[in-house]
Amino acid sequence: MAVKTATEYYASLKKTHPTAYVLGEKVANIHDHPLIKGQVAGVAQTFVLAHDPEGEKLIVAHSDLVGDNVNRFVKLYESADDLIAKVKMLKFLSQRVGTCYMRCTGLDALNAAALTTWDVDKKYGTPYHARLKEWLKLIQKNDCVVWSGVTDVKGDRSKRPSEQADPDMYLHIVERRKEGVVVRGAKAHQSGSLCAHWGLIMPSREMRAADKDWAVCFAVPVDEKGVIHVYGRGTLEERAIEGIDLGNVSFGKFAPMVIFDNVFIPNEHIFLCGEHEFAGQMVRAFGSYHRHSHGGCKCGVGDVLIGAAATIADYNGVPDATHIGMKLTEMIKTVQTMYGCCLAASIESTRHNSGIYQVDTVLANTSTLYEGKEYNETLRLLVEIAGGFAADLPSERDLRNPEIGKLVEKYLKGRPGVSTEDRMRMFRLIEKLAFETRDIVSNIHGGGSPEAHRMTLLRDTDLEPKKKLAKRLAGIKDE
Amino acid sequence: MAVKTATEYYASLKKTHPTAYVLGEKVANIHDHPLIKGQVAGVAQTFVLAHDPEGEKLIVAHSDLVGDNVNRFVKLYESADDLIAKVKMLKFLSQRVGTCYMRCTGLDALNAAALTTWDVDKKYGTPYHARLKEWLKLIQKNDCVVWSGVTDVKGDRSKRPSEQADPDMYLHIVERRKEGVVVRGAKAHQSGSLCAHWGLIMPSREMRAADKDWAVCFAVPVDEKGVIHVYGRGTLEERAIEGIDLGNVSFGKFAPMVIFDNVFIPNEHIFLCGEHEFAGQMVRAFGSYHRHSHGGCKCGVGDVLIGAAATIADYNGVPDATHIGMKLTEMIKTVQTMYGCCLAASIESTRHNSGIYQVDTVLANTSTLYEGKEYNETLRLLVEIAGGFAADLPSERDLRNPEIGKLVEKYLKGRPGVSTEDRMRMFRLIEKLAFETRDIVSNIHGGGSPEAHRMTLLRDTDLEPKKKLAKRLAGIKDE
Amino acid sequence: MAVKTATEYYASLKKTHPTAYVLGEKVANIHDHPLIKGQVAGVAQTFVLAHDPEGEKLIVAHSDLVGDNVNRFVKLYESADDLIAKVKMLKFLSQRVGTCYMRCTGLDALNAAALTTWDVDKKYGTPYHARLKEWLKLIQKNDCVVWSGVTDVKGDRSKRPSEQADPDMYLHIVERRKEGVVVRGAKAHQSGSLCAHWGLIMPSREMRAADKDWAVCFAVPVDEKGVIHVYGRGTLEERAIEGIDLGNVSFGKFAPMVIFDNVFIPNEHIFLCGEHEFAGQMVRAFGSYHRHSHGGCKCGVGDVLIGAAATIADYNGVPDATHIGMKLTEMIKTVQTMYGCCLAASIESTRHNSGIYQVDTVLANTSTLYEGKEYNETLRLLVEIAGGFAADLPSERDLRNPEIGKLVEKYLKGRPGVSTEDRMRMFRLIEKLAFETRDIVSNIHGGGSPEAHRMTLLRDTDLEPKKKLAKRLAGIKDE
Amino acid sequence: MAVKTATEYYASLKKTHPTAYVLGEKVANIHDHPLIKGQVAGVAQTFVLAHDPEGEKLIVAHSDLVGDNVNRFVKLYESADDLIAKVKMLKFLSQRVGTCYMRCTGLDALNAAALTTWDVDKKYGTPYHARLKEWLKLIQKNDCVVWSGVTDVKGDRSKRPSEQADPDMYLHIVERRKEGVVVRGAKAHQSGSLCAHWGLIMPSREMRAADKDWAVCFAVPVDEKGVIHVYGRGTLEERAIEGIDLGNVSFGKFAPMVIFDNVFIPNEHIFLCGEHEFAGQMVRAFGSYHRHSHGGCKCGVGDVLIGAAATIADYNGVPDATHIGMKLTEMIKTVQTMYGCCLAASIESTRHNSGIYQVDTVLANTSTLYEGKEYNETLRLLVEIAGGFAADLPSERDLRNPEIGKLVEKYLKGRPGVSTEDRMRMFRLIEKLAFETRDIVSNIHGGGSPEAHRMTLLRDTDLEPKKKLAKRLAGIKDE
Repeated sequence: MAVKTATEYYASLKKTHPTAYVLGEKVANIHDHPLIKGQVAGVAQTFVLAHDPEGEKLIVAHSDLVGDNVNRFVKLYESADDLIAKVKMLKFLSQRVGTCYMRCTGLDALNAAALTTWDVDKKYGTPYHARLKEWLKLIQKNDCVVWSGVTDVKGDRSKRPSEQADPDMYLHIVERRKEGVVVRGAKAHQSGSLCAHWGLIMPSREMRAADKDWAVCFAVPVDEKGVIHVYGRGTLEERAIEGIDLGNVSFGKFAPMVIFDNVFIPNEHIFLCGEHEFAGQMVRAFGSYHRHSHGGCKCGVGDVLIGAAATIADYNGVPDATHIGMKLTEMIKTVQTMYGCCLAASIESTRHNSGIYQVDTVLANTSTLYEGKEYNETLRLLVEIAGGFAADLPSERDLRNPEIGKLVEKYLKGRPGVSTEDRMRMFRLIEKLAFETRDIVSNIHGGGSPEAHRMTLLRDTDLEPKKKLAKRLAGIKDE
Repeated sequence: MAVKTATEYYASLKKTHPTAYVLGEKVANIHDHPLIKGQVAGVAQTFVLAHDPEGEKLIVAHSDLVGDNVNRFVKLYESADDLIAKVKMLKFLSQRVGTCYMRCTGLDALNAAALTTWDVDKKYGTPYHARLKEWLKLIQKNDCVVWSGVTDVKGDRSKRPSEQADPDMYLHIVERRKEGVVVRGAKAHQSGSLCAHWGLIMPSREMRAADKDWAVCFAVPVDEKGVIHVYGRGTLEERAIEGIDLGNVSFGKFAPMVIFDNVFIPNEHIFLCGEHEFAGQMVRAFGSYHRHSHGGCKCGVGDVLIGAAATIADYNGVPDATHIGMKLTEMIKTVQTMYGCCLAASIESTRHNSGIYQVDTVLANTSTLYEGKEYNETLRLLVEIAGGFAADLPSERDLRNPEIGKLVEKYLKGRPGVSTEDRMRMFRLIEKLAFETRDIVSNIHGGGSPEAHRMTLLRDTDLEPKKKLAKRLAGIKDE
Repeated sequence: MAVKTATEYYASLKKTHPTAYVLGEKVANIHDHPLIKGQVAGVAQTFVLAHDPEGEKLIVAHSDLVGDNVNRFVKLYESADDLIAKVKMLKFLSQRVGTCYMRCTGLDALNAAALTTWDVDKKYGTPYHARLKEWLKLIQKNDCVVWSGVTDVKGDRSKRPSEQADPDMYLHIVERRKEGVVVRGAKAHQSGSLCAHWGLIMPSREMRAADKDWAVCFAVPVDEKGVIHVYGRGTLEERAIEGIDLGNVSFGKFAPMVIFDNVFIPNEHIFLCGEHEFAGQMVRAFGSYHRHSHGGCKCGVGDVLIGAAATIADYNGVPDATHIGMKLTEMIKTVQTMYGCCLAASIESTRHNSGIYQVDTVLANTSTLYEGKEYNETLRLLVEIAGGFAADLPSERDLRNPEIGKLVEKYLKGRPGVSTEDRMRMFRLIEKLAFETRDIVSNIHGGGSPEAHRMTLLRDTDLEPKKKLAKRLAGIKDE
Repeated sequence: MAVKTATEYYASLKKTHPTAYVLGEKVANIHDHPLIKGQVAGVAQTFVLAHDPEGEKLIVAHSDLVGDNVNRFVKLYESADDLIAKVKMLKFLSQRVGTCYMRCTGLDALNAAALTTWDVDKKYGTPYHARLKEWLKLIQKNDCVVWSGVTDVKGDRSKRPSEQADPDMYLHIVERRKEGVVVRGAKAHQSGSLCAHWGLIMPSREMRAADKDWAVCFAVPVDEKGVIHVYGRGTLEERAIEGIDLGNVSFGKFAPMVIFDNVFIPNEHIFLCGEHEFAGQMVRAFGSYHRHSHGGCKCGVGDVLIGAAATIADYNGVPDATHIGMKLTEMIKTVQTMYGCCLAASIESTRHNSGIYQVDTVLANTSTLYEGKEYNETLRLLVEIAGGFAADLPSERDLRNPEIGKLVEKYLKGRPGVSTEDRMRMFRLIEKLAFETRDIVSNIHGGGSPEAHRMTLLRDTDLEPKKKLAKRLAGIKDE
């Protein structure tokens, strides 16, 4: 049972009853909703492929914690090889799903929480690390899907949490009881929250003493009382009900705002509770892990981008045009860079006292800087290669129309030997890849904004030894 | 009557009855259709602002052809100042419409046709130039909206028109009669065709002797028998019916595929008919004019991009962050570059024997190269500045929901003093600007692909004098 | 006499006796020194070409001030056409000199001083503007070469002039006498100072009240007592005595540090003297003019870069390789961008109350941003096209050696029909263009650093109207 | 003896007597020549640091071939860890030398030759692999320095070797004797050839049957009869004799053209001799190894670039300016990218049948693409951070001049607490790093041109599986 099947996943999901709103309406059977089910199907692939011969090697791994094989999505990073394996697993899955399957968020969060709680406990004698491990055993044994809640809505971004006019702009403790705490606030961009069984919630920034009520980390069931998921819109959501025009015919993404409207959290699920000086460490650990995950994930999608570009060039009759080869080369360059830097960040990882391995943050953040900027250029190159029908393509309904269907079929064909329907399908996939907001904005802002990556790069690079190198070569005697 | 009012425009449009399909259905009152009316409103601004004190100076100009003031959108380029004025007019309008109002396509096409027909007539004694002027008088007197039909669907892109398995992949003459010709084919990406009264159709590439039936240019009423407009889809089309979620609350764009299913064209509307060696000249002239137009248009939209970025930074509470200033600077740089190169292409224009002025093609194409690549980076910067809510924003319907509306309002607020509704509106505008496919794909492929711009740059730059300069400085005696 | 010949220029230069040090030695006949004479020859071209039929149209212009034709290098900008003409003149000269001829610095400085003194006099009733005009008459009548002294050495860059530990880090008044002032300080990077008759010295930054002794502008003869020119080294200076290995066989550049060691300036040559609030205006005016000049100059050199790249590709036997065409296209793009933005900055110029025209600062600085960054990429592309012999080329002395000369000639040949000597000459020119520090560092820092250009772009762009445009389209009612 | 000391290296070098020309003169004690000795000193560091506690871990490794520890520069790549170790060793050395120490060329060549000869022998039963190993034992036992000769002079680049008007444009066999062959030709850009004991010479491109005489690989002593080294010039060579003005005060680089004027090679040193179809494999293997080496080397130098930038910002008084932090971040990003991709290329290496490990060519070439382009931008950023004195700095001789020395010292100072001399030293190092041609042109063309890297990227990426991924997601059934 430690590694669930997709059927078991669907069954377990049915037992959850989250409060969810979509486009202004409260929805009961949320997992079947056309705007939601695409990502449920994507997450299900993490179970399907765990039982596939090729996928199993990447997805199933042994956990000392429970003394059994578990799904890698709920396992701690216990070696550099675990970090390499994660990158390869995410690449493998993204190649097959072509969009988000969200389990890396929980995986990165639980590792970040695990290593930070170790340090908190060392300093304060708190019981957080042991508690987290107890909860994690449950997660591992039941192969639960965990979503991570990090990004607060932030309100006035020039203000710290405790300085906001409305204190709820960052999630915080509003009441402390003997058996737990009550929290309030909202987490935005919660990729696939409704596909999960549990949420693991943590601060989104470093905190000062005045912000201690905001320094809180806890686990919470997806359908806990007071937890409200509000669907956020995307550019191509309407297509979610239409065959060819879907683009990606099986999988999709959504990322709600999740409101915590006075939610009670019992002590056994609390992993940080006011130790403000550890908030920064926790979110930075999460950030670097998650940027490292992005490198694996997005280069898997990158292979789909390259494949789509090469296919449409073929369908258009120009697979061997020199300029298309040059554009494909640029795309490959960027995708390989992201992959390469993440593998390197794994090799250059270091062991934390808790036994958990931490990626090299400079290399991991370097990878993400390419995701934030140059990867967007690969999307543009895909459109440049595809030609104008990345927009303006008539619908499948036109193709099926008895009066003009034949004309549409005639005029949308490419080179001989390729059916118009296949060419339309490929244009639709390209439209989806290049213009579906959830993935693209996530490329830029997922795991922190590019500005955060740049700051990390500079902060985590020690300039002093490099200055010494330069001085020595210039013949300068150091003071 | 030479410069229509918007009311007159709407009335005149009602008299046209084009054959139009939208998402598989034939639509009767097409100009009122939610997916169409946004661009009709945009085009109407070319009439509204012609009667505005500031706009009039840019939009109204004297035409010798009819001895009266006309709308600049139907006037020939009779001086370098006309070219400068066009750039400024388009910038002015784009700042106010924020998307396409399509009349520049007809303007550029009629100038390209006018100068090419002059040369054809000189060589062959044909009557095309005089015919075109007669037709143009009608257009000027009635201030007609003209759409240009250039882009063929192309089929197998490795084949010339006459080599295609299906000869209809490029529009061509299928029958020659005494009183005219019958044409067949399809033109794709016909921005706003249904907002026009007339189309001006021309070849999309150079032609050889074997392709002479494809070398055809003519005018055709928008609702001519056999002309079928098939709506092409865009990323945000569904929002077309929803208040805030619209993004751009008044204006929109669409770009159908227009099928010519055996359309008869009478002689008086034919401006090229088999003189294949002039097809290239005509489309290249159109291309350079249109790239020049894009420079004006897109830098007007660019001002909206910059304004939206500055506004959302303000709403988020960080208008003065250094890194945001640096990103705005990058955006300004690109937008000014496009504008500057187009102004310069106007000054460096040359007079064709027909009296029409031709832009400097190298400078005009330089501008468009920035539109094709760096301008896309300004969209990314806009998203980077805005933050994650360029995606995932809950809908207006959530804001209006009695149960969660207050929570949505609470958690989506920014800095004090800005209403949540205004912030949501600005995020929606940003989503529209950064992810609406029709405009963005047009940035890349409108007026020809970047590869065409690069080829033009190289072909139209004379390397020999530059080689001589280098040799002289190196002390090399030229043979 | 108003437009000198080169012979007259050389004769007039002989009459100056500046104090000059080169590599640690005081040099008497400085204008004949191998490290100096190359730029003297370049400046002489501004006289030679004024008497050339093509050059005359660009270089000779009428001055109302003296009622005669003058060399455009000493003329005020009295119209937008003057600004366009300057850009074209500088492009023309740079194509022929391939490096710096330094007269634009004086030209830009005298215009900046002229318009600022007008405003100072309006406020304070000072006599600066009239004084400047009197001095300018002398300059125009004698067609003098003027160098501009702007860049102070700056010391600790975190400190303002009056805050420096050593007050001389910015040039300032150290003594005020009835008949004039005594100044002290040093100006760095004084391109071609020793080719000039006069210097026009001005502040390098804005000043506050405490800095008023640093707010000083004046004219000074090149050989005034206390003015010491100290030669600054460049990468290829040693080649200055060697035939082919020179690269650019006729012209060169140098840019000394000029020390003002207690120099007395009589009242009639003082144009600002303590009016600190005008220091910023003067240097900003100079900066924008000079960035505008760079656009003309560097795109002339850019034509040489493109020509050298095309020539060496030909010599290597691969003039038509696709990838070389693509690289040439990138080079053309950048060069045309700089040119286009400067032409546009001229058209969009505005008339100052003094009658002098001011360039559009946003467009002028946009041009310079490309010079600072993308232009450097054109140098890299030149090296990429040329191949490895941009470095490591054996010397002419090897070619002339009796033992190995034949082998060197044999193994350094390119395609048949090109002599090895010509190929070596072209590689040497490329080495000079791509690696001679004075020009390249000037591309980056000349007329202010890129950071200054970025700040100007942001500061001189009014964001408020753009924000209004965005709000209107989003349906936001402005307060 | 297997790991030499620097003293032993110098002594062994003295025993070689190569034929060398520098600037037209034959030079006897070449290793002491001011233009040569800087790189000899750099190579000596590979011996010095092998006996340093930190360096030893990276430089000394066990070789099964001789059953002893050897210098890693002469060891085969027998595992992925060897490849990782090479990258780290090169980074370590480059940080300390700041320029080329050339031994990686021999290292990469001998691995490429070793694996290719294995394949040749398998096909033809030739004795090359065993011969090579015998020779390699000698090299390992004596810790010899090997230079690799790959780059032919090429003549007309549109012609294959056998098509050239002069057959010597690519090195080839001109006579076959029983005991060996005679070869003729020239290899250009032979980094540090005169620092070596042996050369390992191989083809520079793939060959066809007609080119079989050009398919030759052999070892040759540096001072073999007929081998002539002709010094190639660099931008800053003259400084080689001057204290501060040197820039890099201890180390330098040179890269002669090496002419093979009818050189006899005995059979035991011949490793390929006409098996033309293996020429491509050998040079491609060398190319990918060498690009992989560059990634390590240039990121070591990159640390010096970053250190120099940070130091000069400090010396200028602005170490904490925001824009400088952003520029440092860009520099770090590029340097880490090169490093990361090379580490990743090591992990993803594969074992050749010979037991030698081959790097992942796509990742290795990706790294080099950044070296070819973006790394050049880091040099520009260094200059942008440094300010104008990357050029135009007065000489040390001015500083020492009794008349103006004090003035030079006064005006070239930076922030308090930094001596003018130290600041001058740092500017000189920056000038050297940013403008010394040998290193910079090597960044672009070393290990093959960027065009070669792009072609490798495209050729070695299998597009078919990626096309399948895209088709599956779009719902296209593959034929």
